[in-house]
Amino acid sequence: MKPGKLHLISTGTQTPEQLADTIERIHPEIDFIHLREKAKTAKEVYEIVELLINKGVPSSKIIINDRADVACTTNVRGVHLAFHSLPVEIVKQTFKNLTVGCSVHSLEEAQIAEQQGADYVIFGHIYSTQSKPGLIPKGLEQLNFISQSISIPVIAVGGIKPTNSSDVIRAGAQGIAVMSGILEAKNPLKAVQQYRSYLSESYDA
Amino acid sequence: MKPGKLHLISTGTQTPEQLADTIERIHPEIDFIHLREKAKTAKEVYEIVELLINKGVPSSKIIINDRADVACTTNVRGVHLAFHSLPVEIVKQTFKNLTVGCSVHSLEEAQIAEQQGADYVIFGHIYSTQSKPGLIPKGLEQLNFISQSISIPVIAVGGIKPTNSSDVIRAGAQGIAVMSGILEAKNPLKAVQQYRSYLSESYDA
Repeated sequence: MKPGKLHLISTGTQTPEQLADTIERIHPEIDFIHLREKAKTAKEVYEIVELLINKGVPSSKIIINDRADVACTTNVRGVHLAFHSLPVEIVKQTFKNLTVGCSVHSLEEAQIAEQQGADYVIFGHIYSTQSKPGLIPKGLEQLNFISQSISIPVIAVGGIKPTNSSDVIRAGAQGIAVMSGILEAKNPLKAVQQYRSYLSESYDA
Repeated sequence: MKPGKLHLISTGTQTPEQLADTIERIHPEIDFIHLREKAKTAKEVYEIVELLINKGVPSSKIIINDRADVACTTNVRGVHLAFHSLPVEIVKQTFKNLTVGCSVHSLEEAQIAEQQGADYVIFGHIYSTQSKPGLIPKGLEQLNFISQSISIPVIAVGGIKPTNSSDVIRAGAQGIAVMSGILEAKNPLKAVQQYRSYLSESYDA
């Protein structure tokens, strides 16, 4: 089993400067950085990418939520699509240089994403999380079922703590995606190192 | 003097079906159709374009507000950028097949847009309009000044009625952009024909 990948997803609540300062400190330990700034304009997200690049964050780690145009003009790694975004297959056809991911919440959605050419899916939420109050979590069994049913990487999201991240990888996920667990931690670098430590535990297992 | 071009800008208040039904009836008399649906998602705008194409509206007339990715994936004419959008020069470099326009409100902004490679600008608002309450209109003198100061087409917007559209063309605009004057008219086709009639008056003058 490979060590799990660590995806960081921005929370949309930090200023560009706060976000860039934090990412500057932690990016060497992160595999992919998703800018998910739904309330920000294209220009603002463009400027955040510029900030990150100027701070030495590799563009090959940056993934833009929803806006393929911002991803394409900034020459970053990819775009992450949601149910309200352009269709995966259309984005794949048009933007051949972009890695294209997709959020899914069921086996059916995951299979459609795979058929349409998605490079990976993010599946969740796995555990109860404040950001999805009142919604029943999918749990490790569904994660395991979906991971076995499709051949593209499944990244698990939702309520994942350092201590359960190795369980998630053992259940079939190729990585985990974390938002507040890192960005709202008192010490984001320490939080990242804790996630990393448990993610490599699954490797040793 | 050439006859002025007629740009239609969607108001964002109609359902996709209402908008598509109206445009189906009037598009032969319209030069450019701007989809400016700020509250709609990328997928929703994508679906409106599909609706229009299915109703026989030429893709060469369709311009998407802000979202270069939606314009690019739907293979329409172009994208129209605002102050909150990606920079004009970046969009021009990345999306070479798109016509790229830009909203401007001063001579300085118009000159920057031209330098950055914009194919046209929309300048306004020319007359008082309900959609810009309390803001002083720019008027025909500023329109004239800007039209003479840049060499790309200036399209005038804001409070333009059929009866004053020929004045706007005589003041140097290459066209007018209309929202509610057509889409909220009792009879949109009749409104379009009235605009057309006055726009060709400026041609005869």
